[in-house]
Amino acid sequence: MVSRTVLALTFALVLVWIAVPTRALADEGMWLFNNPPREALRSRYGSEVTDAWLEHVQKSAVRFNSGGSGSFVSADGLVMTNHHIGMDTLQKLSTKEKDYVNDGFLARTRDREAKAVDLELNVLMEIVDVTDRVKAAVKSGTPPEEAFKARRAVTAQIEKESQDKTGFRSNVISLYQGGKYHLYRFKRYTDVRLVFAPEQQIAFFGGDPDNFEYPRYNLDVCIFRVYENGQPVKPQHYLKWSKAGPARNELVFVAGHPGRTERLLTAAELETLRDREWPYQLQRLYRREVNLLVFSGRSLENARRAKDELFSVQNNRKRREGNLAGLLDPALWAAKLEAEKKFKEALLKNRSLKSTMKAFDRIAQAQKVRMARLTDHVLLEGGAAFDSVLFEVARTLVRAAQERARPNEQRLEEYSESERPSLELRLFSKRPIYDDLESAKLAHSLAFLAEQLGAGHPLVQKVLAGKSPRARAAELVTGSRLKDVESRRALYDGGAKAIASSGDPMIALARAVDPEARAVRKVFDTQVMEVKRQAYDQIAGAKFALEGPNSYPDATFTLRLTFGVAKGYDENGKEIPFAVPITGLYERASDQKNTPPFDLPLPWVRCQKTLDATIPFNFVATTDTIGGNSGSPVVNRAGELVGLIFDSNLHALVRAFIYTEVRARSIAVHSSAILEALRKVYGADSLAAELTGGK
Amino acid sequence: MVSRTVLALTFALVLVWIAVPTRALADEGMWLFNNPPREALRSRYGSEVTDAWLEHVQKSAVRFNSGGSGSFVSADGLVMTNHHIGMDTLQKLSTKEKDYVNDGFLARTRDREAKAVDLELNVLMEIVDVTDRVKAAVKSGTPPEEAFKARRAVTAQIEKESQDKTGFRSNVISLYQGGKYHLYRFKRYTDVRLVFAPEQQIAFFGGDPDNFEYPRYNLDVCIFRVYENGQPVKPQHYLKWSKAGPARNELVFVAGHPGRTERLLTAAELETLRDREWPYQLQRLYRREVNLLVFSGRSLENARRAKDELFSVQNNRKRREGNLAGLLDPALWAAKLEAEKKFKEALLKNRSLKSTMKAFDRIAQAQKVRMARLTDHVLLEGGAAFDSVLFEVARTLVRAAQERARPNEQRLEEYSESERPSLELRLFSKRPIYDDLESAKLAHSLAFLAEQLGAGHPLVQKVLAGKSPRARAAELVTGSRLKDVESRRALYDGGAKAIASSGDPMIALARAVDPEARAVRKVFDTQVMEVKRQAYDQIAGAKFALEGPNSYPDATFTLRLTFGVAKGYDENGKEIPFAVPITGLYERASDQKNTPPFDLPLPWVRCQKTLDATIPFNFVATTDTIGGNSGSPVVNRAGELVGLIFDSNLHALVRAFIYTEVRARSIAVHSSAILEALRKVYGADSLAAELTGGK
Repeated sequence: MVSRTVLALTFALVLVWIAVPTRALADEGMWLFNNPPREALRSRYGSEVTDAWLEHVQKSAVRFNSGGSGSFVSADGLVMTNHHIGMDTLQKLSTKEKDYVNDGFLARTRDREAKAVDLELNVLMEIVDVTDRVKAAVKSGTPPEEAFKARRAVTAQIEKESQDKTGFRSNVISLYQGGKYHLYRFKRYTDVRLVFAPEQQIAFFGGDPDNFEYPRYNLDVCIFRVYENGQPVKPQHYLKWSKAGPARNELVFVAGHPGRTERLLTAAELETLRDREWPYQLQRLYRREVNLLVFSGRSLENARRAKDELFSVQNNRKRREGNLAGLLDPALWAAKLEAEKKFKEALLKNRSLKSTMKAFDRIAQAQKVRMARLTDHVLLEGGAAFDSVLFEVARTLVRAAQERARPNEQRLEEYSESERPSLELRLFSKRPIYDDLESAKLAHSLAFLAEQLGAGHPLVQKVLAGKSPRARAAELVTGSRLKDVESRRALYDGGAKAIASSGDPMIALARAVDPEARAVRKVFDTQVMEVKRQAYDQIAGAKFALEGPNSYPDATFTLRLTFGVAKGYDENGKEIPFAVPITGLYERASDQKNTPPFDLPLPWVRCQKTLDATIPFNFVATTDTIGGNSGSPVVNRAGELVGLIFDSNLHALVRAFIYTEVRARSIAVHSSAILEALRKVYGADSLAAELTGGK
Repeated sequence: MVSRTVLALTFALVLVWIAVPTRALADEGMWLFNNPPREALRSRYGSEVTDAWLEHVQKSAVRFNSGGSGSFVSADGLVMTNHHIGMDTLQKLSTKEKDYVNDGFLARTRDREAKAVDLELNVLMEIVDVTDRVKAAVKSGTPPEEAFKARRAVTAQIEKESQDKTGFRSNVISLYQGGKYHLYRFKRYTDVRLVFAPEQQIAFFGGDPDNFEYPRYNLDVCIFRVYENGQPVKPQHYLKWSKAGPARNELVFVAGHPGRTERLLTAAELETLRDREWPYQLQRLYRREVNLLVFSGRSLENARRAKDELFSVQNNRKRREGNLAGLLDPALWAAKLEAEKKFKEALLKNRSLKSTMKAFDRIAQAQKVRMARLTDHVLLEGGAAFDSVLFEVARTLVRAAQERARPNEQRLEEYSESERPSLELRLFSKRPIYDDLESAKLAHSLAFLAEQLGAGHPLVQKVLAGKSPRARAAELVTGSRLKDVESRRALYDGGAKAIASSGDPMIALARAVDPEARAVRKVFDTQVMEVKRQAYDQIAGAKFALEGPNSYPDATFTLRLTFGVAKGYDENGKEIPFAVPITGLYERASDQKNTPPFDLPLPWVRCQKTLDATIPFNFVATTDTIGGNSGSPVVNRAGELVGLIFDSNLHALVRAFIYTEVRARSIAVHSSAILEALRKVYGADSLAAELTGGK
């Protein structure tokens, strides 16, 4: 048994007992690169990971700040990720006339590579444990509001020092819900150019209906090249390509950036997620999905404009439904309760850990505060009431003016010096902004605000200013000059004075709602998050004391290593194979009479006969991945790339709060399928040659 | 000025003042056939309606109990309605192999006409004012619970007497929110056979994106033939066909069954609809829409199975959004408040009407009760927690066993003797029920129940019985024998004993939740509806006293007459014509590159050249229609059919609570387009001949 986290360990046991009595091992864990699962690999697979292997994989891995993972895959700086991660860039580079999302893209020469608008990639160079320094700055027993300030101050200071010293983007990461603090140093890349993307039809074949399903036939691939000083980067580390891909039952690894899990949460906190927070999020997602579908349905150009956002909303909706289904599964829930009960019993038996019990109460109390203000927080600080890119820009400008006038240590964290380059990259992005889409989204979110608080609420009246949601949205969007990047820059450079005197209606709105938004944020920061951080810190400490420190923290969109085997599973008595061949793609399309989203792009129709039918297209593995892992490389023991994670199946969605490998699988594109497609479908032989080192 | 309703009149004035200062007349009103708008027609249009004309139109009009309107259009019992009203039948008659919704239907001979599964048509034969008798039975000042019982008893008695005497379906209709009670006698038809339906592609060209929009190009037509004793009915009245259709600015009438309006509600009650009830309904609609889309996306057969329901959900979502947008429009809201203020001022000035003010408070108090129990009511009594046909069947059986054992006067109204034939028609319907669709819907609604009440709620635990929503739904659906009509009949005939001893899991579920469902219904019936009925009765009385009885009640899905003119409107400075030609259809399809839902059925592609380009396809009129009017005939002064209502534009959706004709229009299929399509696209010459009396 690998995992030493009490909760995680016991879950796995109980789960296993319920579901598959014969199985007692689990490929669990989103492990830190500075605390890898050596023992598990040794005992389960007789495999040793060397420091050199770890460094190689770590520095080959790339984080896409737009929300995904990737890896260096050539000596000349090629980075591979998923199409659905690259889509943010594809969408921003597209116009009505040239639609890269729909049509795909291939730069046959380097000078035709297309520069991304605002894409930032990060490579993790170093991890430093700064737990002691952070905890020393925040004495135990400090009242939450003060503790929050002190913690904010010390992390801002550590980040600034690190950045000044190394030049790296430096972030203090809170792990184990506040049990540990690690300083992560990232190399930033912002000159990123598009090299290859297939048509979305094949990248996302089967669309939303087949999302989170398996078997799948998706070429969910997008390839960029990273530049520095106008030249392709020669990365110190990049992954060699495995032409064979993984064999059945082969041990594989995934290095990527899982976004968020809730495995260490108390049952009481999970209960509030189950009964309030996730249903509320889902309610909004359903609404946004319908609104975007309606907008998209009006014309093909509308559909193009909303495509990226619609995908994201549908993807999140399906994921959240899966998460919630897990929490509503009595067997899983009972396992969670049982695990917590055992942990509490262990606490009560231990004189020095007994007082940890109070931490559970403090978390429950903090969650009460959170639930009482949840709607306000989602609407105002979360921006659910103002679903508009221009409003985001306006809020960033309004807050930047206030925050930049303060000492670095006292700022809201996203305005600290270490975050400045990333913030400015986003703020001054020349991404296209469409009045019609902006107005439609804003109108719907203003209506949502009115419905949630009641149309007579003073804040609603202030926001709507005597207009209907639709009229007010149109007025704000068409009246704002923030579409123009130079206008933004002038307001940013002009600081508080420029903001105060701006007549821009979107700036005025952001100014008007900021006091309320900040007020609820402060409640969350100090009465919720800080209280929970301290309480979870105490619980984590007790866990370490009982179980030793050999465990992994909940996901935090930072680099993690996970392992598992490439293997299929049983679905209602039917054996689902570990890999499915390219021929399956044509069968699925034909079963669905080639109607969207099961229609094939023309190049795929044309070369059906020439493709090697034996090549696996997609495959599954037991690796412990979750949202944020999209685009992660799958590597073998030799550190070669054998696949590209792009999804998990529905069964894996419960992993948000509990690990299971009963039918739960990550889904990846097979490395050989990528080469086959590049060569035969797209005639991209030189790109294929570069990937395989033949060039 | 036509309308004498204080609220309606003043709205129209205020509205007009805000929007179009030069206009001071309105084609308002959903008039009763026994109180037609004679004066308005005389003064505005110099038009007299004779009793003969009224009787002719009334008895030509047909109510589709599945939720729409229609009319007799031939001497041999042809009834025309919309495709989207006929769709319920088309769906029930279709299979995977023969999809009438998608492919359309044409019976070239009478023996090929397809009998509908459970369709009931009603024709209004007679109206009797029974207000005095109802009010005499419910003395003023009777406590609500007793009043409710007394009212229920007297209406059941009146209905039973009428039915026994005349053989007609007899319903006491509460009008003016309880100000008047009229006994409606309907001739029932249940042998209804499908004659013609076009492909849904052309009936609903533009799909959800173009729904509630104009210009439109929909052949939203479906034609049935009514039989009695195995022979086509020879209706006493049917509408003659006008080949010319309406001219621009011609006075037209619509006879149909508007479902529900809220124009006479107090502002306080509307506020609860705006801030709570409608947003809550929308939340459910968004969710159901996404779930049905996901289900439909998995396969073509899934899409076919869910099509009718998906349409209905999308249609309701768009309508409700429009209603809500109206209530969130400050100008319209101010008009409502101002109208109510003036009415109250008039009350206060009148010694004998002053006490009516208290009725407003009683309504507000009843709404408080309603809001406090809204979630329970929607979930349990409304069935939102059990979205399944089989559950509906189970509940009907469980309740029928209880109710039928009681005297007719004490039963829930839908189980009274006068409703029995309609109830049995639905209960024993052989409509197809699909396990997969049932399970998907039920699983989602059970999850909704858990999210709404919290998974730990005792009722949720009772309903889920230790299973996840998905597992529980599958167990209930696959375990139930209620798909089999004979099983239903056995349980129905077996009464309380059969129900009590049934081991059917769906019956067991319906039994288990019935006490809670009935409890919340009782609260609504006695503490909400009855209290409001009495209060609105008082307000209505005051209105009659101040304004005279020459007004129209809110819509109640009973026959109404509305009038207006066929004319276009101005949209952001662009003139929208009253009618659009067939050529526009081909332009819209080509603009959208023929992608669904803008693709044309093959027969329409083929005969593009042969169709007469000058013929108007759809047209708009100022007539006061709303949901339920779908399928209503548009008739001219001569009583001829000139069009077929199938929709209204978005601007008309505010009519749910306030009349306006500023841009608000009904949308209809032009009578000449129907003939052109029947003859040239479908080669249905003999059907066209029968419609035009040429046969």
